[in-house]
Amino acid sequence: MVHVRGVCVLGLGLIGGSVLRAAVAAGRQAWGVTASQEDERGAQLDGYQVTPTVADALRRAADTDAIVVLAAPLPAVDELLRSVAYVAPEARLTDVVSVKRPVAQSVRRLAPDARYVGGHPMTGNSASGWPAGSATLFHRAAWVVTTDDTDDVELWSDVARLALDCGAHVVPAETAEHDAAVGRVSHLPHVLAAVLASVGADGGPLALALGAGSFRDGTRVAGSRPELVRAMCEGNRAGLLAALDDALGRLGAARGSLASTGSLGATIVTGHRGRAAYDQLAAMDRDKLVIRLDAPDALTELTELGRRGGRVVQLDGATALAEVPNPV
Amino acid sequence: MVHVRGVCVLGLGLIGGSVLRAAVAAGRQAWGVTASQEDERGAQLDGYQVTPTVADALRRAADTDAIVVLAAPLPAVDELLRSVAYVAPEARLTDVVSVKRPVAQSVRRLAPDARYVGGHPMTGNSASGWPAGSATLFHRAAWVVTTDDTDDVELWSDVARLALDCGAHVVPAETAEHDAAVGRVSHLPHVLAAVLASVGADGGPLALALGAGSFRDGTRVAGSRPELVRAMCEGNRAGLLAALDDALGRLGAARGSLASTGSLGATIVTGHRGRAAYDQLAAMDRDKLVIRLDAPDALTELTELGRRGGRVVQLDGATALAEVPNPV
Repeated sequence: MVHVRGVCVLGLGLIGGSVLRAAVAAGRQAWGVTASQEDERGAQLDGYQVTPTVADALRRAADTDAIVVLAAPLPAVDELLRSVAYVAPEARLTDVVSVKRPVAQSVRRLAPDARYVGGHPMTGNSASGWPAGSATLFHRAAWVVTTDDTDDVELWSDVARLALDCGAHVVPAETAEHDAAVGRVSHLPHVLAAVLASVGADGGPLALALGAGSFRDGTRVAGSRPELVRAMCEGNRAGLLAALDDALGRLGAARGSLASTGSLGATIVTGHRGRAAYDQLAAMDRDKLVIRLDAPDALTELTELGRRGGRVVQLDGATALAEVPNPV
Repeated sequence: MVHVRGVCVLGLGLIGGSVLRAAVAAGRQAWGVTASQEDERGAQLDGYQVTPTVADALRRAADTDAIVVLAAPLPAVDELLRSVAYVAPEARLTDVVSVKRPVAQSVRRLAPDARYVGGHPMTGNSASGWPAGSATLFHRAAWVVTTDDTDDVELWSDVARLALDCGAHVVPAETAEHDAAVGRVSHLPHVLAAVLASVGADGGPLALALGAGSFRDGTRVAGSRPELVRAMCEGNRAGLLAALDDALGRLGAARGSLASTGSLGATIVTGHRGRAAYDQLAAMDRDKLVIRLDAPDALTELTELGRRGGRVVQLDGATALAEVPNPV
């Protein structure tokens, strides 16, 4: 009965706390543990099961073959993995960290027997901690489940099913492609927001007093907790560096063009087209597609689906129901 | 009876259309004219007075000593000023263009006898045209009124009073300081949004499918009409170049630091501090302050108020009631 597999959440901040709530709301046995006394108290007061120690949580996971979810910032992952290796070495394991290669490398190094499939729900906000979470945080969000951490489709499906149970849709992707993509659409926005906020503040009180919608929106994520933003962005060094170089090249070209010809035409028009492509992808008609998970190339097909902007919206035995944008 | 001075709005897009509505809502005689048949029809259907030609609108302004509001994009300003010089050469004149030096220069060149005081309401959204406007668009927004276009405080007050009537508060600023400030907090955000949208789209459908809150917010203004964004940004070449250089320096430093040491600490922490300063300025306690407009240095005092992040919230005869942030 895969549908009732238990869920063991290590870390009860915004994301982990929301996974715990959503898993319980979906009818699963779920429990968590956190190093934060505040989050622990909050979760208990809200009626959720919190174990006193990581070892307790993992022991229960090992006993019931539950899915262990690493829901801590990247810098705290290694220590949790050492506990996994010690208490539940063959655990079904996933994570919700925003970068995938460093986590996969740590798993191979520290908990090589764990049955790991990477995950990353694309949601969140500038708040953090247990109180900020909710059972509906993942509703209609994209949740990446990596396709190159395992050859075992059943393992993949099991993690994907948890994401679907949480209300998300599943975007299958390879580790490196995920990291490159989120460097562009998730980590670069944080760096640009920080730069914009700094340039605005450099203008003193007059400039800040004049900051309206474009400044407010453009700097919103600069309000997130610096240590979380750093952990996220610094963890994706390779993906973010590539995105930064793309941005620096484009910004330098804009500067040069404005200075020499007075025109920002290419910059503004290309940006407008990019934003339109984003809006269109969200609004596009979607073809339904069935992917047989017992076919030998199922994981390849899933990866290809993700590359085309597609997603899995339902799992039904050995069948994945998917949607893929139809640009016609 | 300064309070009932008429308002003649040249251009009925988002901003001009909202000025017309707000002026009427404040009990003023107000009328407009537009080159767009669509906006003209919309305004008429909504019951507003629209004259057939710019000359008609200006003739009425000259006859009643009304305030003429230039509410067209920068590239269309010169042609309107030629009409002003021809039909209403000594008109009370202001504008709502997002950059002040080029407008002031055009006024001096083309309508040197007009009694001009520059203006800039800091609001708007990615929509445009008459239907997007509203009488409450300026509610609690900052509206810059320049302090160095005239020595005539009565003229200044008259424009400031229109802004207050529209529901805005008035931020006094010198032309060059305004342009430098909006380069940072209004024009740079548009260029960064365009760059981010382009970098995201470069990542293909997978990246766009993973774009969540930070990407959506960071690229929102890239959805604005490219010709309006270009007119706005290109019109403030000097102010925007300075802001771009600041941004390029900071982004390059972030790139270098990430590549060499793996740290984004300085970037993220400084950005977080900048955003906090912005939030604090908005939330800060404000000291009340009275500025006598018949004092010889009134315009200097108003300028100083703006530099400190202050604003005028009421005009009462020869007295301006102001608020200034109290950082204690």
